[in-house]
Amino acid sequence: MGGGSGGRGKGMPRAMAPAEEVDVAAVRYRPAELQAPHLIGFPLRAFVWLLESPLLGPLLTSLLKKQNNMTQMLQRTVIPERPMFYPEYPPQEPERGVLTLEEDRDPVDRVEEALSCLVPYDPSGRFTSTDEKNPFLYWKIRDFAYAYRSGITTPSAVAELVIAGVEEWNNKKPPMPMLIHFNANDLRKQADASTKRFEQGSPISVLDGIFFAVKDDIDCLPYPSKSATTFFDEIRPVEKDAVAVSRLRKCGVIFIGKANMHELGLGVTGNNPNYGTVRNPHSIDRYTGGSSSGPAALVSSGLCSGAIGTDGGGSVRIPSSLCGIVGLKTTFGRTDMTGVVCDAGTVEVASPLTSSVEDSVLLYSALAGSRPMDKLTLRPSPLCVPNLVSSENSKILQSVKVGKYTEWFHDVPDNEVSNTCEDALNLLCSTFGCQIEEIILPELEEMRTAHLVSIGSEAFSDMNAHYQAGRRTEMTLDTRASLALFKSFTSADYVASQCLRRRIMYYHMEAFKKVDVIATPTTG
Amino acid sequence: MGGGSGGRGKGMPRAMAPAEEVDVAAVRYRPAELQAPHLIGFPLRAFVWLLESPLLGPLLTSLLKKQNNMTQMLQRTVIPERPMFYPEYPPQEPERGVLTLEEDRDPVDRVEEALSCLVPYDPSGRFTSTDEKNPFLYWKIRDFAYAYRSGITTPSAVAELVIAGVEEWNNKKPPMPMLIHFNANDLRKQADASTKRFEQGSPISVLDGIFFAVKDDIDCLPYPSKSATTFFDEIRPVEKDAVAVSRLRKCGVIFIGKANMHELGLGVTGNNPNYGTVRNPHSIDRYTGGSSSGPAALVSSGLCSGAIGTDGGGSVRIPSSLCGIVGLKTTFGRTDMTGVVCDAGTVEVASPLTSSVEDSVLLYSALAGSRPMDKLTLRPSPLCVPNLVSSENSKILQSVKVGKYTEWFHDVPDNEVSNTCEDALNLLCSTFGCQIEEIILPELEEMRTAHLVSIGSEAFSDMNAHYQAGRRTEMTLDTRASLALFKSFTSADYVASQCLRRRIMYYHMEAFKKVDVIATPTTG
Repeated sequence: MGGGSGGRGKGMPRAMAPAEEVDVAAVRYRPAELQAPHLIGFPLRAFVWLLESPLLGPLLTSLLKKQNNMTQMLQRTVIPERPMFYPEYPPQEPERGVLTLEEDRDPVDRVEEALSCLVPYDPSGRFTSTDEKNPFLYWKIRDFAYAYRSGITTPSAVAELVIAGVEEWNNKKPPMPMLIHFNANDLRKQADASTKRFEQGSPISVLDGIFFAVKDDIDCLPYPSKSATTFFDEIRPVEKDAVAVSRLRKCGVIFIGKANMHELGLGVTGNNPNYGTVRNPHSIDRYTGGSSSGPAALVSSGLCSGAIGTDGGGSVRIPSSLCGIVGLKTTFGRTDMTGVVCDAGTVEVASPLTSSVEDSVLLYSALAGSRPMDKLTLRPSPLCVPNLVSSENSKILQSVKVGKYTEWFHDVPDNEVSNTCEDALNLLCSTFGCQIEEIILPELEEMRTAHLVSIGSEAFSDMNAHYQAGRRTEMTLDTRASLALFKSFTSADYVASQCLRRRIMYYHMEAFKKVDVIATPTTG
Repeated sequence: MGGGSGGRGKGMPRAMAPAEEVDVAAVRYRPAELQAPHLIGFPLRAFVWLLESPLLGPLLTSLLKKQNNMTQMLQRTVIPERPMFYPEYPPQEPERGVLTLEEDRDPVDRVEEALSCLVPYDPSGRFTSTDEKNPFLYWKIRDFAYAYRSGITTPSAVAELVIAGVEEWNNKKPPMPMLIHFNANDLRKQADASTKRFEQGSPISVLDGIFFAVKDDIDCLPYPSKSATTFFDEIRPVEKDAVAVSRLRKCGVIFIGKANMHELGLGVTGNNPNYGTVRNPHSIDRYTGGSSSGPAALVSSGLCSGAIGTDGGGSVRIPSSLCGIVGLKTTFGRTDMTGVVCDAGTVEVASPLTSSVEDSVLLYSALAGSRPMDKLTLRPSPLCVPNLVSSENSKILQSVKVGKYTEWFHDVPDNEVSNTCEDALNLLCSTFGCQIEEIILPELEEMRTAHLVSIGSEAFSDMNAHYQAGRRTEMTLDTRASLALFKSFTSADYVASQCLRRRIMYYHMEAFKKVDVIATPTTG
């Protein structure tokens, strides 16, 4: 065990040293060894039946956890730290080269401020596209804004292309069910209202008339929120927009519909037997990754400028990476989860997916803002965006230290991934003069376990009453297998995982004393 | 279920309305119905063996929980609130008639300030005792302080009486093992040092030379901390005083030893087969209550002025009540738990037991002070003590509103208890003019369950590694039965309990908008 000292005698369990006494430099990297059966069809059905059986289920989950050294480790280790139930951030020094945004201001004002942080817009070059079929592919938000303002096109005109595009993807063989709730008339209505604002010369913000998608676990009228299940709207009707959605709506954003996802967000492939599995637009034989499969595919295919996803364990970052777009997991508590299906956990956030960093800045500046209670209890550091026109900025990049844990970086099944990532990192350094610093993060395996127990327990707790009331059988086998595992976690596992969270947070805070960012391949 | 609305159709679990929408006035009181087997001797041994067996144990714990509508309720109810893992207090209006103490000041200074809040000391009357056998019985701290300063007696002289008293109680038939670690020489050494300070005319504080006991789960050199187990010193050696102890030591306090308790604090009777059970000094056929059985008995028997106990679920309040002394459970996070055996939970605090309210004020003012991390994350309201000499004060008592939930108040097996409590309350009102206001606290049964799951899970998590490593068999059967139950709680039970905590906190905050204090019999 990373940083742990051995037992002290007969009958003594393994005891970890306090995190601050661990000699990080001496920590040896241990590659992840995860084992789980790969099953489909009848064997999967039988496996789930066994997992859920009152007598054999506990034995089977216990065997699976033992194989993966999961809760065994939690139950047999003395962890000296107290639990940390939410990420706690000690007060930080203010960041350099950023613009702080007032959280309580109108999103329209915040987007305006964020706009002032971008390098001045230059329309030349963009409007020479001859791709008749997909003239707006990867236009940035500011490209649309310019085109609307200069009369090159209108939101209503773009809406027709979006509607046609959605249909086209749906009719592909195999089909690409990127949106699972879609209402062309609602889309046209929003676009017409925006078009009218431009005609009247009074667009609301740079986001007016920009097309976004919303993951199906985030409330967005007039659609239900099913989290890509078949039944969730029956147990949780949508009464109003989620806070994140309403902030964007205030800015004039047009929502194209509810995007497909891994059922209940409980998986990272995006595989979904209920609505069909979204395929990777860059290569339809491949997964998009998940759980925000639909949002990533929509942005990646060029059907919309961005999307709001949710990320508790990679659900925005993984599909963004696999689909070649920009996914940001915001700081916990930085976005308001009111109106999101799994709004009660300690790891999940609403987060932006876009096709460029520039658009991520704009979307984030509209989306962000803690819920009032979180401001009191979590006190996240001030909301800020990078000021890309600050005169300081070129100097700042020179002084940026990029942390790299080399052994972890290359612990991927195919080194093409890590080598490509390394090339990109080297290019960054040679271009801007940033420095790579070697770092070590102890107890990564413990971190994985603590994370799985936390997110799994919180997700299961959210579903428990419905699960017990018989909804279990309406879920896909994949989800049922996950929930059967999560159901087996004990409360002591959960508390121990929070003790590990305190250690992991400590190690990361220590690493961030040495470096400004940590770079890794997003997915192996 | 208090405040809950029923299911909405087939396959719909019970769903609670959001706490702020519950019509509190319409809530009907539901008396607690707890069922557990009362067993001793062989049947108890067999019961524990069954509880701990890998196959039958889960069935038996499940049956017990079902009988008490415990985790069934947690698992089959949709709770709309997010979890609240620690008690969260929204910012409060400053209290009237109190003196705010600077937490970061030396405890000596804080005690000095607290002293200024007491009505001036009057020695007349106290020093006329003719009880030769127990001349110091229920002397207050200020009585000792006066006696030391005026040469009536010395700490060393009192020490000899304490030593003789401890011996006398130990030799009683049946014996009263109030202290389980006691070192007469260490006690004499502390007393002699204090006596010398008085001789030199330089006592440290009003607490100099005052005798206190420490519950066995709080570190106090030169003693081990066994939490009244037979083995805990082997797995957790004591290296220094707990913070609470060191604060008192700074003030010149004399520690007489480590007080008996319910093993690991996991029970409220004080029954302890390892060291013998402390009996109630007022009636040796009765329990002291627990888990701070020794501290309460020591104070109640007059052997020391006060004690530091710990309270997570009544462990200070219950024995104080049964032994007729003053027990205060401080606000969570108000005291520093560093150096306490169970320092990692979300309900437990180190708290004072004394023979009078006046002494409680003095002990509390020395003891209190959050740990640095808690100040950042919990931000408890300012540390304060009642200013009993404030000119405002008589007026304040007139305006105090005492909340009384009449049905709950009288839900006791014997109404002698509640009637006596009611008489006291009426006397208080007729003497000082305070008002009684009827209140209703919804979901008390849910509160009990959420509390048991929280404290049990946290206690079990603390012990888990040692439990799995075989220490289980060194514990008493009572403890083993409790731990077997706690072990069966799932992580989803734990998270659901924290969602209930948010509701319960809401109901209490609402009640405290109407009233200043809530009065109940401490124990039924």
